[in-house]
Amino acid sequence: MRVLLNVSYLGTNYVGWQFQENGISVQETLEKALFEATGLQTRVTGASRTDSGVHALGQRAHFDTSATIPAERYPFVLNRYLPEDVRVMLGQRVPEDFHARFAARQKTYTYRIYNAPHPSAITHAISWHVPLPLDTESMDRAVQTILGTHDFAAFAAAGGQAKTTVREMLDASVTRFGPMIEISVTGTGFLYNMVRIISGALAYVGLGKLDGDCFSRALKSLDRLDLGVTAPPQGLELTRVCYDPALGIKDP
Amino acid sequence: MRVLLNVSYLGTNYVGWQFQENGISVQETLEKALFEATGLQTRVTGASRTDSGVHALGQRAHFDTSATIPAERYPFVLNRYLPEDVRVMLGQRVPEDFHARFAARQKTYTYRIYNAPHPSAITHAISWHVPLPLDTESMDRAVQTILGTHDFAAFAAAGGQAKTTVREMLDASVTRFGPMIEISVTGTGFLYNMVRIISGALAYVGLGKLDGDCFSRALKSLDRLDLGVTAPPQGLELTRVCYDPALGIKDP
Repeated sequence: MRVLLNVSYLGTNYVGWQFQENGISVQETLEKALFEATGLQTRVTGASRTDSGVHALGQRAHFDTSATIPAERYPFVLNRYLPEDVRVMLGQRVPEDFHARFAARQKTYTYRIYNAPHPSAITHAISWHVPLPLDTESMDRAVQTILGTHDFAAFAAAGGQAKTTVREMLDASVTRFGPMIEISVTGTGFLYNMVRIISGALAYVGLGKLDGDCFSRALKSLDRLDLGVTAPPQGLELTRVCYDPALGIKDP
Repeated sequence: MRVLLNVSYLGTNYVGWQFQENGISVQETLEKALFEATGLQTRVTGASRTDSGVHALGQRAHFDTSATIPAERYPFVLNRYLPEDVRVMLGQRVPEDFHARFAARQKTYTYRIYNAPHPSAITHAISWHVPLPLDTESMDRAVQTILGTHDFAAFAAAGGQAKTTVREMLDASVTRFGPMIEISVTGTGFLYNMVRIISGALAYVGLGKLDGDCFSRALKSLDRLDLGVTAPPQGLELTRVCYDPALGIKDP
């Protein structure tokens, strides 16, 4: 039986989704819990390889198992063995040829900037502290210019494995909730560090260090240098992964 | 010079505001930072002795110092020496007879309940997970019945040092933001564990295990047993301490 999970985690204490020599990954944490729950060595495949320190509200992961636990019971079963900062929210049986990563149609990421003179003691683990005031209206206007299908080569860090750098961005917004600014971007797929590069550029736009045409320029020049700094990982969250509605994949 | 600070902290890794033999307190963490910043041993006095695991957005604390640092600079100076989970948001010079605790006129506490079938990996440190659905409308109606001046003897855990159990509650509300429920209570003062007892009772009201008259009954009976469980500490936050407006105490 192939099972698809919706997984949430606070990335602070992990080296990222995928196995790494230098620390504990979310993937191995889930596999360990599966082993403890079922007694079976089980490989888990995630929809997105989130980086070290990056969080997820709605990561997806599938695995094959001969265990007789009904798919819907996995949240209850696994949360008994998982640490507090990794939680399974939903389990669902899927066809044997379903693949959490290859079947993904859209992903939504949220990037949080804590914009106040002094850092936050409460939300420091899930946001980037920017002390100078940011103009969120100009940030929201600027981020609209990435919508559509473009070659996002300028929006990628070295180290990515993508065959093409063309992606389609479907929705983007910048919203302020008191001192917290949320950047939300939905696309058919993302290049390595893409949302952190967009967020870093948006912070520069908000500070007036970059103008609102920076994304349009970078989409033409394909030059990473048109986009300023890469925002740090702790502000980033994989919020949602969407599949073909015909597959009937549930949301928590 | 007497200086008043506005202090924010994530209480997870602390034994509470006040010195304890069995772990690190927020008070000693601040005093250590003050020593590192000024070279002077300085005693810090807080407005509220928050318990182990309880958070603060707007704790207040005063200290006397012969250091020549302008009061307004203390957030910048102390945040260099403080850990990420303790932050000073504001510093202000106050009269020599000002006392952070005795001068407090009102305090606002927020209690957070994460109300979803499975616990949250992201907010587990700042909320109480209640898996069964809570009726927030009946909780909001019930909490209104604590408003006014009453003998809150039934709302106190053993171990408090209050001379009288009469307090005035000025404002109270229960609001839902998606899976997160925020209970906000403002009063002239609070008894030991009072907000956690109110929140525990409200959760029972939301589940239908206690009726909406439970607070009225407890205010008459003065019997703790009329109010169900005490909610756990990690959901509680000291949100704001207010002083006489004539004193000109600033908010961050």
